[in-house]
Amino acid sequence: MHLHDLETPALILDRTKVDRNIARLRDRLAGLGVSLRPHVKTNKSADVARRIGEPGTPITVSTLKEAEYFLQHGWTDILYAVGIAANKFAHVQRLMQQGAQMTVILDNVASAQALAAFCKDQNLTLPVLIEIDCDGHRSGLVPTAPELLDVAAQLGRAKQDGGAWVAGVLTHAGASYDCDSTQAIVAMAEQERAGAVLAAQRLRDAGYAAPVVSVGSSPTAHFAKALDGVTEVRAGVFVFFDLVMNGIEVCTMDDIAVSVLCTVIGHQKEKGWIITDGGWMALSRDRGTSRQKTDQGYGVVCDVDGQPLQDLIVAQANQEHGVLAHRSGDPARTPMLPVGTLLRILPNHACATAAQHPAYQVVAGGQEVEATWPRFSGW
Amino acid sequence: MHLHDLETPALILDRTKVDRNIARLRDRLAGLGVSLRPHVKTNKSADVARRIGEPGTPITVSTLKEAEYFLQHGWTDILYAVGIAANKFAHVQRLMQQGAQMTVILDNVASAQALAAFCKDQNLTLPVLIEIDCDGHRSGLVPTAPELLDVAAQLGRAKQDGGAWVAGVLTHAGASYDCDSTQAIVAMAEQERAGAVLAAQRLRDAGYAAPVVSVGSSPTAHFAKALDGVTEVRAGVFVFFDLVMNGIEVCTMDDIAVSVLCTVIGHQKEKGWIITDGGWMALSRDRGTSRQKTDQGYGVVCDVDGQPLQDLIVAQANQEHGVLAHRSGDPARTPMLPVGTLLRILPNHACATAAQHPAYQVVAGGQEVEATWPRFSGW
Repeated sequence: MHLHDLETPALILDRTKVDRNIARLRDRLAGLGVSLRPHVKTNKSADVARRIGEPGTPITVSTLKEAEYFLQHGWTDILYAVGIAANKFAHVQRLMQQGAQMTVILDNVASAQALAAFCKDQNLTLPVLIEIDCDGHRSGLVPTAPELLDVAAQLGRAKQDGGAWVAGVLTHAGASYDCDSTQAIVAMAEQERAGAVLAAQRLRDAGYAAPVVSVGSSPTAHFAKALDGVTEVRAGVFVFFDLVMNGIEVCTMDDIAVSVLCTVIGHQKEKGWIITDGGWMALSRDRGTSRQKTDQGYGVVCDVDGQPLQDLIVAQANQEHGVLAHRSGDPARTPMLPVGTLLRILPNHACATAAQHPAYQVVAGGQEVEATWPRFSGW
Repeated sequence: MHLHDLETPALILDRTKVDRNIARLRDRLAGLGVSLRPHVKTNKSADVARRIGEPGTPITVSTLKEAEYFLQHGWTDILYAVGIAANKFAHVQRLMQQGAQMTVILDNVASAQALAAFCKDQNLTLPVLIEIDCDGHRSGLVPTAPELLDVAAQLGRAKQDGGAWVAGVLTHAGASYDCDSTQAIVAMAEQERAGAVLAAQRLRDAGYAAPVVSVGSSPTAHFAKALDGVTEVRAGVFVFFDLVMNGIEVCTMDDIAVSVLCTVIGHQKEKGWIITDGGWMALSRDRGTSRQKTDQGYGVVCDVDGQPLQDLIVAQANQEHGVLAHRSGDPARTPMLPVGTLLRILPNHACATAAQHPAYQVVAGGQEVEATWPRFSGW
């Protein structure tokens, strides 16, 4: 099958770029002596995940549906990296009964108390990472927070204590997505590392085992100078990359492995608009590049081979319509590509765009579709 | 089952509000003597669509997957309201062979030529609506465009000619979503009506049958004073409503039938943040209210009964995390709802939010879940 045989819109994945992106980070982390626990929230596909590591290797998930799916496909060492809510305890237990080695996270006394009570009641031994806030970006306790020991006090000191026990700390330098220079990302990576290591040390000093120090974001994973004290790195979007990562120079535009195939269905010539059948339902509503140096609208327009067309972006999007225009807004500068032209749109945010599609149409550099890899959504 | 028995996030649909919203528009259009061809792109669910009209009643779709699904559930009179691309011709033909009465749209000579050639080649009789641009919002020809007759000239004059034939015109007043007063919506509705009727008249004067004059958007459908010359109205979001519709006063906040159930999983007290497990994956990245008088962030926070909590909004969203804060940004004004609190978030755009979920959890005003209605996504 050929890209021209597909109905549009469709999600295209270039396998050669996926493999190159994976090799790059794997080599980098091997040099730093730290293992990778890839975040599968971006790909939600066993076919993609197998290219990062065989079933059995550790993974990170953002939903228990991901945990369930990857467990069915042979991955057993699963970190659920969103603060656990009590309405998910029973689901975690079921996954463990089915063979998963689950790890969960939390950042407050109330959650720790509830989980400890559940584990005691159900006679469940469950490793818990305490979430650390290394950058003021989202959840977690700051590394020096007195509450760190209050949270730990609700949990067991080591695995042999049984129940919910303090397996270590986890942090995510989400603010690295907003860095405006490589230097800033390097500094953020060190801040992420140092914060997590400090928090783990405080726990160990207080008598907790805390063997795990888990850090990660795709930007910091690619620019950390040292990861001393860190036991694992999490990253997900690096497998596909996207325009947000390109905007902070973590990848080149040529590294972006995922794109949305769409077709020109009309024009508004006097406005310099090309209308396609790739709207926000296919691209997602993500506008992550709007706060970067170069605003890419809803995505960068490429030809069917994936080569960017000079300064043409998805300027607007309706549910099932994309409006392409020259970046300048000058109508005369839009090349009026004929009706029927196939195009590929590079997305702002690979996680958001891929989530809109039921499958990847896989190519290897060319226009030949060599496989269809299913993916899932929801909870 | 009760809302407290669900894992979060989950999509909640209040059936009583759905029925009330449907009755309101049905009564209104009956008064204007025009029939409804509901757009099922918002609900993508036979269970919801049956509340608007029994299988067999006319529907509008935005994807051929919707056409396929609703045909399987008994709906046969299907208008695919996105300019047809040649890579979808064969799919339309398959749907017709399976019993669908399909209507398609287009707005340019190239598409009309390609479709006419396909229909001639395949001996297919297919009604075509020519898309009219009534408001400069997206696709279509302006009502007075000379090209209107050039497009029609590629097609048959009436059904008995066979092939692709001119069944009429279609327009969508998408600009009505940006109106800032009811008066402006009333004016836009008349502009939409008048433009479509004028274009249809030009076609009839030139000898084309053009029996259909199809108009519609949820705002104009609710405020049109007259629909003389119009044969059908399309609307979709009116079944659920959302904050964008509330922002332009098409509905009250109490009319919004769809919400995302989520759970408080932590806090950042000094920032006045409440962290939940309802992020942009559950809410969508839609920020449609950001250009309205009141920016609702990623949604309005309600208690588990669906009552808005004073001035609490989803101020930020990560993939699986929502950050709730007081609208003012003053940390002291955020009520620190305890970990474990169940909340319901009203969405900016019902189409975008519902698309993120595999099913509706249906309530009837209360907290009792009386049914689970599946829905689908993709193409």
